[in-house]
Amino acid sequence: MKSIHTFKQCTSTIGTILPRRLTFTGARLTTTTSTSTNPAASVTGYALCSVNGCSFRFLGTSTRSTTRFVHELEKEDRSSHRLTTLHNHYRTLCFINSTPKRQMSQSSWTGPFGKDLVFRQLLEYKSYTYTYLLADADTNEAVIIDPVIETVDRDVKLVHDLGLKLIYAANTHVHADHVTGSGSIKKLIPTCKSVIAEVSKAKADVKVNEGDLIKFGKFKLEVRSTPGHTDGCITFVLHEKGLVFTGDALLIRGCGRTDFQQGNPGSLYDSIHKKILSLPQSFYVFPAHDYTGQTMSTVGEELRYNPRLTKPKNEFVEIMKNLNLPYPKQIDKALPANMVCGVFDVPESS
Amino acid sequence: MKSIHTFKQCTSTIGTILPRRLTFTGARLTTTTSTSTNPAASVTGYALCSVNGCSFRFLGTSTRSTTRFVHELEKEDRSSHRLTTLHNHYRTLCFINSTPKRQMSQSSWTGPFGKDLVFRQLLEYKSYTYTYLLADADTNEAVIIDPVIETVDRDVKLVHDLGLKLIYAANTHVHADHVTGSGSIKKLIPTCKSVIAEVSKAKADVKVNEGDLIKFGKFKLEVRSTPGHTDGCITFVLHEKGLVFTGDALLIRGCGRTDFQQGNPGSLYDSIHKKILSLPQSFYVFPAHDYTGQTMSTVGEELRYNPRLTKPKNEFVEIMKNLNLPYPKQIDKALPANMVCGVFDVPESS
Repeated sequence: MKSIHTFKQCTSTIGTILPRRLTFTGARLTTTTSTSTNPAASVTGYALCSVNGCSFRFLGTSTRSTTRFVHELEKEDRSSHRLTTLHNHYRTLCFINSTPKRQMSQSSWTGPFGKDLVFRQLLEYKSYTYTYLLADADTNEAVIIDPVIETVDRDVKLVHDLGLKLIYAANTHVHADHVTGSGSIKKLIPTCKSVIAEVSKAKADVKVNEGDLIKFGKFKLEVRSTPGHTDGCITFVLHEKGLVFTGDALLIRGCGRTDFQQGNPGSLYDSIHKKILSLPQSFYVFPAHDYTGQTMSTVGEELRYNPRLTKPKNEFVEIMKNLNLPYPKQIDKALPANMVCGVFDVPESS
Repeated sequence: MKSIHTFKQCTSTIGTILPRRLTFTGARLTTTTSTSTNPAASVTGYALCSVNGCSFRFLGTSTRSTTRFVHELEKEDRSSHRLTTLHNHYRTLCFINSTPKRQMSQSSWTGPFGKDLVFRQLLEYKSYTYTYLLADADTNEAVIIDPVIETVDRDVKLVHDLGLKLIYAANTHVHADHVTGSGSIKKLIPTCKSVIAEVSKAKADVKVNEGDLIKFGKFKLEVRSTPGHTDGCITFVLHEKGLVFTGDALLIRGCGRTDFQQGNPGSLYDSIHKKILSLPQSFYVFPAHDYTGQTMSTVGEELRYNPRLTKPKNEFVEIMKNLNLPYPKQIDKALPANMVCGVFDVPESS
């Protein structure tokens, strides 16, 4: 771990805190701008830091606490993990006064679809649900698709870890198999708005319809109406990156069931063929569930290998009518909760 | 689905099958080269096809069956799903005589890390294991990392669907929580070789050591010895794409346990810091497990947020010594099976 960081000697004086600029990239803590005599510093007593491109100030409750922070940095023994521990210790306080301005495009903490898009696929094991976190790496504006109530803490922590500003929690439909995390997320991040299809008749901050655009930073998700599993099912398309989030309409080598909640196999067949499989074959398919442990597919693969959707419509309808699936375990709890999520509190019992 | 394909009129004659070249990309079936009088055709009776860049012949058991195949193509009603069904019907026979030469770089059925690399992350729900399928999109040579016996059929089907030639089944270590799929894969794909660290003392076709390279097409996985969870733990690094497959050494915001199978927390700490966290921070971390539903991380994130690895070594060792984890459920079955996998048959009872 030697030479992981260079930590220059400080020139601060007790009582007159001189601001310095530190760059902390992972375990690498480096002084990038040593010292400047900022008049404001001697008055308020603060340390300017930059953590992985995210600039923030440490504003102690007193000049003394700020001094202690700076001096603890000074006397560090250049062991990177000790610096990390110190940093973590002060992080909460620091972020209170932070002005997040991450440079994700430089730090590359994004995702596989290019340096300008943050992308994370997350899984909830109980209902086999995939949640997706997307963000513009420059503005940090983020959208979460299909969050689950059980994993909200994990998701919100990741949002914070990645320095994101979550502006939308978007649901592809009124889920019957799990309670959405939208309501809980809004409690933790009050600026986040819930989104659902207007057709669903569920309550949410933002109701969307065919052709609407959900914007985050320079990106936009196109809303496509894809009824069949439910009336209010929507699919999100991120054209710039060739990604399609299909909810419970198209699944990997499968599709959503059509035997409850306005389910209609004929509609589902048309929705999938007209709105999803008509996209370029290279588009990546990210569904709301997979029960076999596959994480992604492509339009091309589903056109060729989906055992149901490669059938003629009449055969597809017959297949869907004869699946004889069990009643969804969580439906009686999930449906009423999901019809009001994001506006009212989710039931305490959930 | 209109205009999804153009299907030109054929000019074949019963009894004298004229070869034609068809390009089938997903649901798009197009005649690219109409007809040529290949003398061989009239003798053997075959149809030349190209499915998603993979050239193959349909060789019927008789001239009549070949004729029927060609004529069934001819009389198709241009409905893409009917063509797909027809194609699927004949696919098995066709592939018997196939000469796979997929053009993945054109078809984009690859993965998110560029058009030249096939990448798929797969999950086994019982042991929360991630399996990775990697391939050179030009040569189709593929490697599977940490396959699980329960999901071998799924994985082999995907290998076939994507037209890959699996040459290695590589294990990051002798797993204690599940039986490796290497042995079963070798039964289904006899040309595939099992790979494990020599230090593990397990049997396999290929034993690797620090610095060895596992080559597939133009790509190569660098083997890094990362003991600590077990003596024989290795990490694979795909430098060109910035991917690191960490097995049970580094997990997302965690690490492998060190309380059985030669476990040594001090060694694990050094392995992770020296061999994994010393990689560029933008490298994507793909572990063998995640119990919280996260699918990927980065070196930068783990350097900053891993609650164990950001600690000093002595604190880390203390933490690891006091985890008090339960005895692994499958260890008594998994260890003996995994010590011989890939060479001998896995036990029938597994």
